[in-house]
Amino acid sequence: MDPTQDVDAVARSIRDMSIRGAGMIARSASSAISAYAGSWQGTNEREFLDELQRIARMLYSTRPTAVSLRNGILMTLRGVESEKDVPSMRERIARQSKEFTESAEMAREGIAEIGSKRIPKGSAVLTHCNSMAALNTIKKAFEDGRVEMVFSTESRPWRQGHVTARWLLDNGIPVTMIVDSAVRHFMRDIDIVVVGADTISANGAVINKIGTSQIALAAHESRVPFIVCAETFKFSRETLLGSLVEIEDRGPVEVADPMKPSDFKGARILNPVFDATPPEYIDAIVTEIGIVSPYMATEVIREMFEMEGPVTLEKRRSRINWL
Amino acid sequence: MDPTQDVDAVARSIRDMSIRGAGMIARSASSAISAYAGSWQGTNEREFLDELQRIARMLYSTRPTAVSLRNGILMTLRGVESEKDVPSMRERIARQSKEFTESAEMAREGIAEIGSKRIPKGSAVLTHCNSMAALNTIKKAFEDGRVEMVFSTESRPWRQGHVTARWLLDNGIPVTMIVDSAVRHFMRDIDIVVVGADTISANGAVINKIGTSQIALAAHESRVPFIVCAETFKFSRETLLGSLVEIEDRGPVEVADPMKPSDFKGARILNPVFDATPPEYIDAIVTEIGIVSPYMATEVIREMFEMEGPVTLEKRRSRINWL
Amino acid sequence: MDPTQDVDAVARSIRDMSIRGAGMIARSASSAISAYAGSWQGTNEREFLDELQRIARMLYSTRPTAVSLRNGILMTLRGVESEKDVPSMRERIARQSKEFTESAEMAREGIAEIGSKRIPKGSAVLTHCNSMAALNTIKKAFEDGRVEMVFSTESRPWRQGHVTARWLLDNGIPVTMIVDSAVRHFMRDIDIVVVGADTISANGAVINKIGTSQIALAAHESRVPFIVCAETFKFSRETLLGSLVEIEDRGPVEVADPMKPSDFKGARILNPVFDATPPEYIDAIVTEIGIVSPYMATEVIREMFEMEGPVTLEKRRSRINWL
Amino acid sequence: MDPTQDVDAVARSIRDMSIRGAGMIARSASSAISAYAGSWQGTNEREFLDELQRIARMLYSTRPTAVSLRNGILMTLRGVESEKDVPSMRERIARQSKEFTESAEMAREGIAEIGSKRIPKGSAVLTHCNSMAALNTIKKAFEDGRVEMVFSTESRPWRQGHVTARWLLDNGIPVTMIVDSAVRHFMRDIDIVVVGADTISANGAVINKIGTSQIALAAHESRVPFIVCAETFKFSRETLLGSLVEIEDRGPVEVADPMKPSDFKGARILNPVFDATPPEYIDAIVTEIGIVSPYMATEVIREMFEMEGPVTLEKRRSRINWL
Amino acid sequence: MDPTQDVDAVARSIRDMSIRGAGMIARSASSAISAYAGSWQGTNEREFLDELQRIARMLYSTRPTAVSLRNGILMTLRGVESEKDVPSMRERIARQSKEFTESAEMAREGIAEIGSKRIPKGSAVLTHCNSMAALNTIKKAFEDGRVEMVFSTESRPWRQGHVTARWLLDNGIPVTMIVDSAVRHFMRDIDIVVVGADTISANGAVINKIGTSQIALAAHESRVPFIVCAETFKFSRETLLGSLVEIEDRGPVEVADPMKPSDFKGARILNPVFDATPPEYIDAIVTEIGIVSPYMATEVIREMFEMEGPVTLEKRRSRINWL
Amino acid sequence: MDPTQDVDAVARSIRDMSIRGAGMIARSASSAISAYAGSWQGTNEREFLDELQRIARMLYSTRPTAVSLRNGILMTLRGVESEKDVPSMRERIARQSKEFTESAEMAREGIAEIGSKRIPKGSAVLTHCNSMAALNTIKKAFEDGRVEMVFSTESRPWRQGHVTARWLLDNGIPVTMIVDSAVRHFMRDIDIVVVGADTISANGAVINKIGTSQIALAAHESRVPFIVCAETFKFSRETLLGSLVEIEDRGPVEVADPMKPSDFKGARILNPVFDATPPEYIDAIVTEIGIVSPYMATEVIREMFEMEGPVTLEKRRSRINWL
Repeated sequence: MDPTQDVDAVARSIRDMSIRGAGMIARSASSAISAYAGSWQGTNEREFLDELQRIARMLYSTRPTAVSLRNGILMTLRGVESEKDVPSMRERIARQSKEFTESAEMAREGIAEIGSKRIPKGSAVLTHCNSMAALNTIKKAFEDGRVEMVFSTESRPWRQGHVTARWLLDNGIPVTMIVDSAVRHFMRDIDIVVVGADTISANGAVINKIGTSQIALAAHESRVPFIVCAETFKFSRETLLGSLVEIEDRGPVEVADPMKPSDFKGARILNPVFDATPPEYIDAIVTEIGIVSPYMATEVIREMFEMEGPVTLEKRRSRINWL
Repeated sequence: MDPTQDVDAVARSIRDMSIRGAGMIARSASSAISAYAGSWQGTNEREFLDELQRIARMLYSTRPTAVSLRNGILMTLRGVESEKDVPSMRERIARQSKEFTESAEMAREGIAEIGSKRIPKGSAVLTHCNSMAALNTIKKAFEDGRVEMVFSTESRPWRQGHVTARWLLDNGIPVTMIVDSAVRHFMRDIDIVVVGADTISANGAVINKIGTSQIALAAHESRVPFIVCAETFKFSRETLLGSLVEIEDRGPVEVADPMKPSDFKGARILNPVFDATPPEYIDAIVTEIGIVSPYMATEVIREMFEMEGPVTLEKRRSRINWL
Repeated sequence: MDPTQDVDAVARSIRDMSIRGAGMIARSASSAISAYAGSWQGTNEREFLDELQRIARMLYSTRPTAVSLRNGILMTLRGVESEKDVPSMRERIARQSKEFTESAEMAREGIAEIGSKRIPKGSAVLTHCNSMAALNTIKKAFEDGRVEMVFSTESRPWRQGHVTARWLLDNGIPVTMIVDSAVRHFMRDIDIVVVGADTISANGAVINKIGTSQIALAAHESRVPFIVCAETFKFSRETLLGSLVEIEDRGPVEVADPMKPSDFKGARILNPVFDATPPEYIDAIVTEIGIVSPYMATEVIREMFEMEGPVTLEKRRSRINWL
Repeated sequence: MDPTQDVDAVARSIRDMSIRGAGMIARSASSAISAYAGSWQGTNEREFLDELQRIARMLYSTRPTAVSLRNGILMTLRGVESEKDVPSMRERIARQSKEFTESAEMAREGIAEIGSKRIPKGSAVLTHCNSMAALNTIKKAFEDGRVEMVFSTESRPWRQGHVTARWLLDNGIPVTMIVDSAVRHFMRDIDIVVVGADTISANGAVINKIGTSQIALAAHESRVPFIVCAETFKFSRETLLGSLVEIEDRGPVEVADPMKPSDFKGARILNPVFDATPPEYIDAIVTEIGIVSPYMATEVIREMFEMEGPVTLEKRRSRINWL
Repeated sequence: MDPTQDVDAVARSIRDMSIRGAGMIARSASSAISAYAGSWQGTNEREFLDELQRIARMLYSTRPTAVSLRNGILMTLRGVESEKDVPSMRERIARQSKEFTESAEMAREGIAEIGSKRIPKGSAVLTHCNSMAALNTIKKAFEDGRVEMVFSTESRPWRQGHVTARWLLDNGIPVTMIVDSAVRHFMRDIDIVVVGADTISANGAVINKIGTSQIALAAHESRVPFIVCAETFKFSRETLLGSLVEIEDRGPVEVADPMKPSDFKGARILNPVFDATPPEYIDAIVTEIGIVSPYMATEVIREMFEMEGPVTLEKRRSRINWL
Repeated sequence: MDPTQDVDAVARSIRDMSIRGAGMIARSASSAISAYAGSWQGTNEREFLDELQRIARMLYSTRPTAVSLRNGILMTLRGVESEKDVPSMRERIARQSKEFTESAEMAREGIAEIGSKRIPKGSAVLTHCNSMAALNTIKKAFEDGRVEMVFSTESRPWRQGHVTARWLLDNGIPVTMIVDSAVRHFMRDIDIVVVGADTISANGAVINKIGTSQIALAAHESRVPFIVCAETFKFSRETLLGSLVEIEDRGPVEVADPMKPSDFKGARILNPVFDATPPEYIDAIVTEIGIVSPYMATEVIREMFEMEGPVTLEKRRSRINWL
């Protein structure tokens, strides 16, 4: 079978959302590249690299703002150009893809294991939006007898808090539902805040569901620990090179709800999906490789991409600009 | 006609919400007391005072958490016991009621006049919920060419922000609608925050719509001025004597919306109407008697009730406990 | 009997500590002055004023750092010089002394009544040292079902915390004893801090037992309310005129305990009795005249001494410098 | 001699700067009004008031941003309309003018007396710009053996710091000269900051020489006390009614110095004279009537203008809008 | 001689406290393992590893909360499983043990050398409890002419401050003794705070003698640098994997001192040994490998355990769970 | 030609300032060492190392406070001692010198590229003093349409702000000139602060032109991002080992300007060139290897000098103390 077709199929599925979720997208793309490489018949290294770059960019174009997709592709291909021939390249890709996908699969469990220990016994936990990394951590802590109550914000405009509340109830975990505005009012009753992340920036800022940053601010004001659960593939290499994370606006419908935007003719309606929480309000980021200070974000990124050691000119020159 | 009947009618109207709004409630109660006093036929001062106390308490019982009602009654009756005979008492009540109602009527305009000057030219203003004292201030500033844009929060769970947006549009004022969670994200684009108040406590804390305190916190973090527009009858004398302002919970329906609370069977749903903003996050309270530091709240209260001068025993003894 | 002898006796008793406690000292001095004035036989106003000044200064010299003594004397004598003859002066002194002593006696009860309402239901309260104003407030709140646990610091070097723990136990109030160093460690378990005061300064700083200011700092860091219970006679008029409150050093013995200072030959041993808590860490001062913001301290002082109204030259000139 | 001519002469002198200094301007205007009133020959009260208003406005127009001028005029004329006939009015004006001018003259000395006590023994004091109220306070403290060193900032763009350094040297007070940028670098060597004020706003903000607010910020960061020395006539009544203090821009020449603005053709050059220091960074304001918390500014203003007592309609109506 | 007996002897000595001190315990355990390995006679690698694990766990069980013991064992055994045969394993253990013990011995000197340079000339230094790493640093700085005075807290409940004061006096270093409550009162006289550490957590929190965190808070409030002297073996690998550092309670006797706990019958007496100082209050950690930001704690830990490079699955799988 | 003469010439040129600028100095010294090593004729490794050390120290002595010079020398010579013979040493020096100089040349461009992306579209940028790393970043951002206005401080006492304003005008970039004291006044109009650095310390403090730290403080107060543009050779290895960065005082002339210091006879005039900005006020350091948190400074330093991996004794012993 034509491996290019496989790649196309994966790309289509990502684009039409039949493959969803940060981890799933990344693993699918990594596997598709690996399968493609495994079946490539040529022997010319340059040609092979060109093909890989083409495939990589095509996959990447399906969700250019998904940092996990970007990372999955880059982790799979990193250093391939330094191999001496096509078979070694192929082998490296296969190994790196396997490592990445297995590691991504194991990440959530690792995070729950590690993060749950940060939750003191008898805690009231507050969470925002609907992050499975955060929820699995809370669930593990609940099973270990550490959680007494989970406060779940509504998380307007999508109300993912309703999904969260549902999931917690289904897992037998006591839940208190509040609106987003009530966070500071209840903060002194909270023992720890646990949230997820969309993207983690090189300067330690955590990009997550709109509202996260003001929860972090209120937690900080009351000396309540605030932790973020996130796989390492959420760390953005682009931000290491200066890029600001762009924040999508999802249009007026959700904000106007339950009215129609046209009911507010003439009004500007803004609907940013995410906001940025500065590192000074984050006590720890829980990743599958352990507890990380947000200020360590650059180290995590550089390590992921083997950017260690003195940055010699040679090193800088040898890098292929995959995406 | 029987003045007691009038009082009863007013009480009923307040209770069944046909008389609404902090100012309207207070003025109606004050006028009813004045009318009652004016038509009272007896000559015995003690009897008169007893009657007044009965009437006052009956009116007060219709909305015991409404600080404006309490203040309207107390301002109308204050010092009556020091008058020498019933006619003087009657006259004093009439005068004080007139003063109170006229003053309350003029207050909003005065606040708008004073407060609008605090808004710098070309401002983006953020408001929360739906306070007419705040909105009139913003409107006055807009008419003076000071306001370029008003950010209006949704103000879940009631969504009074929709009413605010509507009112601003109807008055030709540019409006941007955002969800409550987006406040900190946009804070650096805001020049001043203007809100109303439900009650102002003796220690300077402002009790207002749930969410106000986290907006104030975010404004403070970004050095954005935060002002409160409130008539002096919002200052609570009870808190001078230690009482904490109790915060009502309006039940689960609004929070669960658009689902039913039963859809989240087993979940606790909390819905506090107000929260308390500490004085350190408030730059100024705009009242009809001028700009007031929140730390001056006790002075405002003591002045309203003529509690000035050294607090001698005599003074303390002569007070009637009206409510 | 010779009233001067009475005054001498009171002075001696204050000096030799047989009359103790801020309130008791002040009331005794006030009564002694009143008794003296009541028995004075002359008719010359100037002579009378001179005598009063002499008596006042003599009493004051017994404990010149006790702000309550100072205030008791001044409140008793204030405005006497404006009376037209000796009998009026005498009467004024008698009235003012009665007012002061009755008011001081009623103050503690008033403070407990008012302050206890500031303690939320189910509270863990932390107190420092051994202030009866604070303890009576806590006891009242306990009786009203508001207090679940009281944390009592040791309050080195005197260990008044042991006395406090004893008193609480004797009153059936649950107590947790901790060392002074453990305050921040437990702060997130505390709902409110309640302490007393030695002196309150015009700029709102509260002078109280050494250690108070770092408790206030830790409370502020964790958004835990911090309130001070203090009679108005603790407010220092001298500080209004710029004086800094001097802080006594009680010598090395208590600090070296249980060793002897000579065991640390060559070491400097410092033992300040008090420290100053800045107003920004104090949520409210509870006095017998109600809740007061620390920033209102000057108003309290000016009102106590009838320093209100525009400060005309005439007013400034007419004041006798009693002490 | 024609009293109107006197008033004209005073107005001219203020305008052409031959009468200078906040206090001098205010006293001259007050005296001119008093002289004018004293020589007014008519008997019609309304006519007299009209004339007074005309004179007042004319004097005021010479320096409309000088809050001391405004206050001097208003303090001289306050309540005149409530007198029953022209002679009483005249007498009131004479009395109030005398009070104001004597009080203003005595203010500086009073401030030095009171403020110097706030400076601890052995202090290194930092001052900014060239405020005589601040410098006299420092000098008094130096004479009392409390000051060891005075840090004087350059105070660009005018370099009033050079004048300050000169004055200190002439008075035998040790001085250290630094540039404005070095303030934070030396802040931990400073024991107290003492500055003056141009205007004090109702919300407690102190308007003073550009740079004051960042010194206050740096002092606050290092827990160094920051005090402001200012006569009560620096408190602005207008701000009580909402007005923001407008900050003058003195044009590009001083900023470009020692070049010419034209050397930077195309550049925008901004030169604000003042900035606003928020009350949270100010420990105390030293006035001639004692130590005042900046949060008490409204009380000072209201008291100066006899705005005390409940604000009845009658009171509000009776006021003449003098300026 | 039976090497197992040696190990047993060391274990006993650690347990019965005849081997004491974080460094001594760790070095003894490391040497015991090395000696045991050196004398092991078998050739089967698996068997050897099992034996090593048994020995390691036995030693570890003697003081499971001592992070230095844990680290000494782990540093000695790390990577042993990757060696190809028993002799190589033996050699590696010997080398690593030598490295660890020599490095631990040299650490204190290195810390003193490095840390002393952080103390500015003419400093007043404050220290808490009795840390030799901190005291040697202070002594080195004193010898270099940098220290003028050392403030030593009492450090209730154990009063290790008395030991510290004694040691400083014996070394000819000027000392000022104060009670724990007086720290904030004197903080503005302090130039730098220097303390030791019991354990350093992955998120940068420093676990040290109760009271440390409120000293750090007070230092931060006054912009006084706060540094921690600690060998790298104080960094806890467990916390990298989420574990919270458990804080021992040493029972009521010390807190009740000089009374008996039974004198406070009915009182709860809490006596936590340590508290956690958050990284935001720590300017630098001085280790033998140089100055480290507390936020770098995870890097220190990962480097110590050669956890660098991308965390591949292979790496994760190969690790033996030694303890 | 005698290579020693070359080195002497370079040393002279650095000393007499004909070679200037942090980067130029460092590159010249590195090249001189490389040239010298390339022409060295001996074969004895020890002798060669001794010669290199002599040359290194001679070059270093020309500007011992220039961290770039120090780093250029150390980066050129690092690890040379581990090579087996003179030719390998020579080759290593040549390679490392080439790497260092090329990398230093490319750094500025890299910083501009990376840093410019951190500046949001439509920004008002504030800069201080005259840093080409900062200005090139701003220029790149301006070319990308991100900058609308640059605020340039005067930067007394040298007034490098005039040079900055000139350079910006010459590059067609809109500029606003203000005095140093006006920074906080305008801070709320600023979107981002971009400055350079003289030296970066191991604890993340940035040593830069006097005034930088108070700008950073004011930016932090208003939640305005503050970034530092600096080549990695600005990171100081000495500070890793505890050294405090000494801050030069440039004498009284510049401060007294335009007067003479003798015009202020008796005054102390202090003129520190730099101050230290703490890491908590710095959002990111932009280097040629990417965005770095200031808290990562030790990692940058350790990586530059290949100090990674566990710090074994062997490693510590093998290091030559080059300077």
